[in-house]
Amino acid sequence: MKNQQQVFVTMAISAWESHIKRTDKLFDGLTDAQLSHEVSPGRNSGIYLLGHLTAVHDAIPVFLGTGGRVYPQLDVAFVSNPDKSGFAIPAANDLRTYWKEVNTRIANHISTMNEEEWFKKHTAVSEADFAKEPQRNKLNILVNRTNHLSYHLGQLMLLASKNG
Amino acid sequence: MKNQQQVFVTMAISAWESHIKRTDKLFDGLTDAQLSHEVSPGRNSGIYLLGHLTAVHDAIPVFLGTGGRVYPQLDVAFVSNPDKSGFAIPAANDLRTYWKEVNTRIANHISTMNEEEWFKKHTAVSEADFAKEPQRNKLNILVNRTNHLSYHLGQLMLLASKNG
Repeated sequence: MKNQQQVFVTMAISAWESHIKRTDKLFDGLTDAQLSHEVSPGRNSGIYLLGHLTAVHDAIPVFLGTGGRVYPQLDVAFVSNPDKSGFAIPAANDLRTYWKEVNTRIANHISTMNEEEWFKKHTAVSEADFAKEPQRNKLNILVNRTNHLSYHLGQLMLLASKNG
Repeated sequence: MKNQQQVFVTMAISAWESHIKRTDKLFDGLTDAQLSHEVSPGRNSGIYLLGHLTAVHDAIPVFLGTGGRVYPQLDVAFVSNPDKSGFAIPAANDLRTYWKEVNTRIANHISTMNEEEWFKKHTAVSEADFAKEPQRNKLNILVNRTNHLSYHLGQLMLLASKNG
């Protein structure tokens, strides 16, 4: 019988992995033309959401304290500014490669972390705040980013029926 | 310093509550006309997603072992069949009322559950399977339904800019 600490870590990692798997499958099945469509008229394009998710995931190792950014240059076009702001963006194929790379990197980091480590504070919270709010731990980063991914996956699924 | 078991439960409940709050705010700000729109051409309407989320949440107490269904009649139009299948549906105003009621009921159930209870098996898993997979507990129902809500919230947000 696993202890409850292990159980909770397993729950959070499983949810993360299953959402990454579903999103990978969706991106792999979308053509570059489909990715260029907006998820709904006037809203974000698929390519923007691919860049956005890649940039947000690229920062996860920083919060976990397991590594630095690899693609900080994505932030201006995909995080700090909305879609259609006119910034140059990488080719779809490059973004697809970055997306796979960043998630593979996170999976490697996850595989090296033990249960105790997940309940330590993440790097963007102070010791004082963490003492008051112990839920602001590394595992909570993974839980929140899973919900963030699910939110945008729901939107990206709308592209699956587009022509192109 | 809270113990870690309390910390896990706090993390999962906070994520649930914050998503319910965001979704409530969105529904309250959408007119019935906006709700009648599809989130993207040819996809689910806002009213379908309101009914779908209400029906799915209505079943949560069953999984938690805290109560029965109140609106099982919603399943045929909003869970077992896709949008635009031609089934009669309640008025938007009634669905809005059910949505608030079901989430208030769940909040009441949550307030009565202690930490130990959350790590017990949910009602749809056998004792034998639970022994092998202790992550199939009541808290995992809440974690999974939070991700499900986030997925559809991302779609519902697309209605906020529609006229009507």
